[in-house]
Amino acid sequence: MKSRKPKQAVVLLSGGLDSAVALYYAKAKGYKCLCLIFDYGQRHRKEILRAQRIAKTAGCLHKVLKITFPWKGSALLDKKIKIPEKLSAGVPVTYVPGRNIIFLSFAISLAETIKAGAVFIGAHSQDYSGYPDCRPEFLRAFSRMAKAGTLGKYEITAPLLRKNKSQIIRLGKKLGVPFELTWSCYSGGKIPCGKCDSCRYRAKGFKEAGQPDPLIK
Amino acid sequence: MKSRKPKQAVVLLSGGLDSAVALYYAKAKGYKCLCLIFDYGQRHRKEILRAQRIAKTAGCLHKVLKITFPWKGSALLDKKIKIPEKLSAGVPVTYVPGRNIIFLSFAISLAETIKAGAVFIGAHSQDYSGYPDCRPEFLRAFSRMAKAGTLGKYEITAPLLRKNKSQIIRLGKKLGVPFELTWSCYSGGKIPCGKCDSCRYRAKGFKEAGQPDPLIK
Repeated sequence: MKSRKPKQAVVLLSGGLDSAVALYYAKAKGYKCLCLIFDYGQRHRKEILRAQRIAKTAGCLHKVLKITFPWKGSALLDKKIKIPEKLSAGVPVTYVPGRNIIFLSFAISLAETIKAGAVFIGAHSQDYSGYPDCRPEFLRAFSRMAKAGTLGKYEITAPLLRKNKSQIIRLGKKLGVPFELTWSCYSGGKIPCGKCDSCRYRAKGFKEAGQPDPLIK
Repeated sequence: MKSRKPKQAVVLLSGGLDSAVALYYAKAKGYKCLCLIFDYGQRHRKEILRAQRIAKTAGCLHKVLKITFPWKGSALLDKKIKIPEKLSAGVPVTYVPGRNIIFLSFAISLAETIKAGAVFIGAHSQDYSGYPDCRPEFLRAFSRMAKAGTLGKYEITAPLLRKNKSQIIRLGKKLGVPFELTWSCYSGGKIPCGKCDSCRYRAKGFKEAGQPDPLIK
């Protein structure tokens, strides 16, 4: 009997909780996943190392792609800008203009090359509503653009788009996501700072999901 | 009297003829231009050096951005694939999946950062109809995606889109484009090979425009 060739997908992996859940979701849907990890001048390398470990733990190949954002202006890239310690309204200072647009562009270029039929991204609009490149209308427009500008047909899949953090954590728990490997804190210390936006959303999510965060001893 | 702040634009510059005409067109429209040049593992560095000289000659600042396409598959990136010596039908082997999508994504990220209102690209659909990321429907879809995924409003302007090579050359002549600095040949020799797609289209264009090509002695 001829064995079926598994469906292939490119998965954007950041080292954070959301993209790890997106990866395990794609795997559960039967995709053979190639993880794409960006080294783009983040404040710390911890999330890149965590992304690589998550890919390996999931039994998937990965590529780390080094890109330069030669322009500053976001607290995630510029160490001179202080990461805020309270939940921000509107667009946060951690916004990097066009970041998801650039990441998705590389992902569809890779998908076209390896003939993958899907690209998975862990974006969700509820927690970080201030980032314009996480909005459902952006993802729809990106899919249409990708269809017009390439030869393939890539489904841009954002399975977490309508979920909040606690729903994402519950889904991840069900899928066996190794949460202890994920890193959400904007700082790269030994333990999460507990004060930045990302730490606060994570803590709130685990609390609401009724789960302990394995990173917090 | 308060002096008006000039309109700003990001211009994608490749070292070729088309993007040089797009730059001079943007200047003629009153834009202060920042040229964005990519070092993406081209077969030769000549076009990058030419792009830098064109920007300087036009009196514009420029940025060279190094990016990696870690996947092969195009004759423009992979020296093992031979550049064809006749005009190709359909999608040429020089096609790099998602190249313009990636270039434009960086351009709008830069435009958002410097608060430029326009992005210029020298794409035109008539000569290279085989490249899906030069088509008018792609550029329209990209503009819509950029509006949905960023905070700014960027006009993606492709002034050459409906022109053929001889019309582009005539326009460039009128605008004072230094054609002697532009480089179209896919090979990086001392003189153009005269055989690749790009050389043939250039020669045809100059002939039809009734102009001598200053690169051909």
